[in-house]
Amino acid sequence: MTSVKRWLLPDGVEDILPSEAHKLESLRRELLDLFESWGYELVIPPLIEFLDSLLVGASEGLDLHTFKVTDQVSGKMMGIRADLTLQAARIDAHSLNREGEVRLCYADNVLHTRPRGIMTSRVPIRLGAELYGHASTAADVELICLMAQTLRSAGIPGVQIVLGHVGIFKALVSEARLNAEAESQLFEAVQRKAYDEIDLLLDNKVQDSALKQQFKELIRLSGDESVLARAQEAFAAASAAVTAELNELSDIVRGVKRRLGELDLHFDLCELRGYEYHTGIVFAAYTNEYGRAVAKGGRYDQLGRAFGRARPASGFDTDLKVLAQLSERAFTRPRGILAPDSDEPSLTLKVSDLRSQGEKVVTLLGTEDVANVDVSTMHCDRRLIKRGAAWMVE
Amino acid sequence: MTSVKRWLLPDGVEDILPSEAHKLESLRRELLDLFESWGYELVIPPLIEFLDSLLVGASEGLDLHTFKVTDQVSGKMMGIRADLTLQAARIDAHSLNREGEVRLCYADNVLHTRPRGIMTSRVPIRLGAELYGHASTAADVELICLMAQTLRSAGIPGVQIVLGHVGIFKALVSEARLNAEAESQLFEAVQRKAYDEIDLLLDNKVQDSALKQQFKELIRLSGDESVLARAQEAFAAASAAVTAELNELSDIVRGVKRRLGELDLHFDLCELRGYEYHTGIVFAAYTNEYGRAVAKGGRYDQLGRAFGRARPASGFDTDLKVLAQLSERAFTRPRGILAPDSDEPSLTLKVSDLRSQGEKVVTLLGTEDVANVDVSTMHCDRRLIKRGAAWMVE
Repeated sequence: MTSVKRWLLPDGVEDILPSEAHKLESLRRELLDLFESWGYELVIPPLIEFLDSLLVGASEGLDLHTFKVTDQVSGKMMGIRADLTLQAARIDAHSLNREGEVRLCYADNVLHTRPRGIMTSRVPIRLGAELYGHASTAADVELICLMAQTLRSAGIPGVQIVLGHVGIFKALVSEARLNAEAESQLFEAVQRKAYDEIDLLLDNKVQDSALKQQFKELIRLSGDESVLARAQEAFAAASAAVTAELNELSDIVRGVKRRLGELDLHFDLCELRGYEYHTGIVFAAYTNEYGRAVAKGGRYDQLGRAFGRARPASGFDTDLKVLAQLSERAFTRPRGILAPDSDEPSLTLKVSDLRSQGEKVVTLLGTEDVANVDVSTMHCDRRLIKRGAAWMVE
Repeated sequence: MTSVKRWLLPDGVEDILPSEAHKLESLRRELLDLFESWGYELVIPPLIEFLDSLLVGASEGLDLHTFKVTDQVSGKMMGIRADLTLQAARIDAHSLNREGEVRLCYADNVLHTRPRGIMTSRVPIRLGAELYGHASTAADVELICLMAQTLRSAGIPGVQIVLGHVGIFKALVSEARLNAEAESQLFEAVQRKAYDEIDLLLDNKVQDSALKQQFKELIRLSGDESVLARAQEAFAAASAAVTAELNELSDIVRGVKRRLGELDLHFDLCELRGYEYHTGIVFAAYTNEYGRAVAKGGRYDQLGRAFGRARPASGFDTDLKVLAQLSERAFTRPRGILAPDSDEPSLTLKVSDLRSQGEKVVTLLGTEDVANVDVSTMHCDRRLIKRGAAWMVE
């Protein structure tokens, strides 16, 4: 008897047992097949990379969530990926190096130093799709439609899609000539929607009263589609960069609605939490059953530059474990046929036939008679029994 | 222009690009389906665990190949798994905690601090099957047959199966009362088949001349099936433990040959390298194309004890990346249909229909005419073109 409980797992780390694993594997296959049917090609990036490529363009948050280890071969620091998007961007820019549009997808393990939220796994399975080489909103429309289809196929009820734009806040910050410290204070206060604090910061840091007013409008621009009209009005006199970004958003809304039909679409022009490397339009899917985004994505156009080739880029990802948990679909595991343990050639042949027809055949090891066993304890609902010279499924 | 080549990957770490990834994913699904058809249930253990559970019963080699990191939540040491067998044993003993036979399988990432051999990946994808709760050789026979079937399904040519027994060497060591240092010197010399060194060690450390002779026989017992008869003769006067182990081996050979028919079966009674936690019968599959075992397994009966429940256990695993590399089967990726980018409802409907029929439909983003594009650059071989009011695949 040992006093160490060796079966205890770290917080936010979990085993997935057979019935849940079956659900997860079924979803994994269906969703990768869905991505494939839209032209997205599977890639398998490595679990570990040198830090200086793994964290190119990543936020501080992603950096802090990445486990670091020393490479015993080179002596350099490596990171265990907390995300696959940056790896896919490296593959597009360098390893594949194709001209034109490239569509990639993946479903793979990542690791986080700390849970990213309450009840959140530190060992998620990231499933995602990324589209490179196309700068217009047509790519974003395709990805938002694919994200919606992914959640529909996975059986996630009550999905709400929220659109935003990382560029508007950034454009205002740049026009107001805020330094990095003031920007990060403001960003942080905006994420908490701490209106008094924001007003105080703006009064201290921003001289231009029109710009100050635009900031104050921005942080209140969240809600249904009417937000878009309110934003056009509030930013009518804003810089060309800001109005161009609003027009992009309107284009995307038009494209998505034409393709998806009725849709629960919302806007939040200053909700920027959790966007790790995004530069433009961002989109996320929420459901009442889950406190965080179920799926999330957007544009991250300049990232490929660090890998030798700047490429337009947009994509989204989700966590298969969360999908399996929220899915309302039933995934029943087929029950098997219990067969005796004998080396009779006729039995070997029969079992092999049944298995190649897709049946599950479980061998009862030992000499007990199959007829006397409660097959349900072996996850079976039938038996293989010899009648005369023939083996019959009963 | 930066001087850091951010696309360089560490040694033994590789991207898997679409055509290879398709092959790997196809093999993954087929082999998990094969395991399922034999009654093995999928589990998904976490990528990371506390070290004191992850390395229970593991060899020093497995320990040295495991990356260690500090858990920021608990302050305890965690390891990133280098193997899944021990995790499966923990799940059987504790998380599942079922009575009777339990069959588990998995296909998942592991990570190694250093490559385990020349040209060996540090980020393998381990695929394996484990059988718990059955102590007789019937379980080993089933696993050897499943291992052979796995390699056959994967299209690996020229497979040779090698059987051994970790227990014979251990029994002789125990009878000779060798201390840990002498045992490890001898073990190491035996693995190098350094016969002069072995003879010297035996002359110095082993008094009993019969025992010394048995050691000398053991290290020469490798080759075809005649080895088994030679072993029976050499160990005729050996302890009951040794003869029982030889009888187990004979039983297994009989069982496997009856089920698999013609088979390239070999024996090596002292090749024990790379068996990390095994206690009894061991088996491995080799092919001329690959310098190391393609698949490997055996008995590790006492491991569950550390997790609260001692259980008979036997299993094997292989690396999906190696299988994909050695496979002689062709896996062709289906080509797609190129469709224009339009939000016409009739097009949306047609594309959605084609995709749900299993077709791959790639949208040509932008306004270019589908008829003017070289479809092969988009991995397509057909186009979707509007003729009158109908969309036709051409």
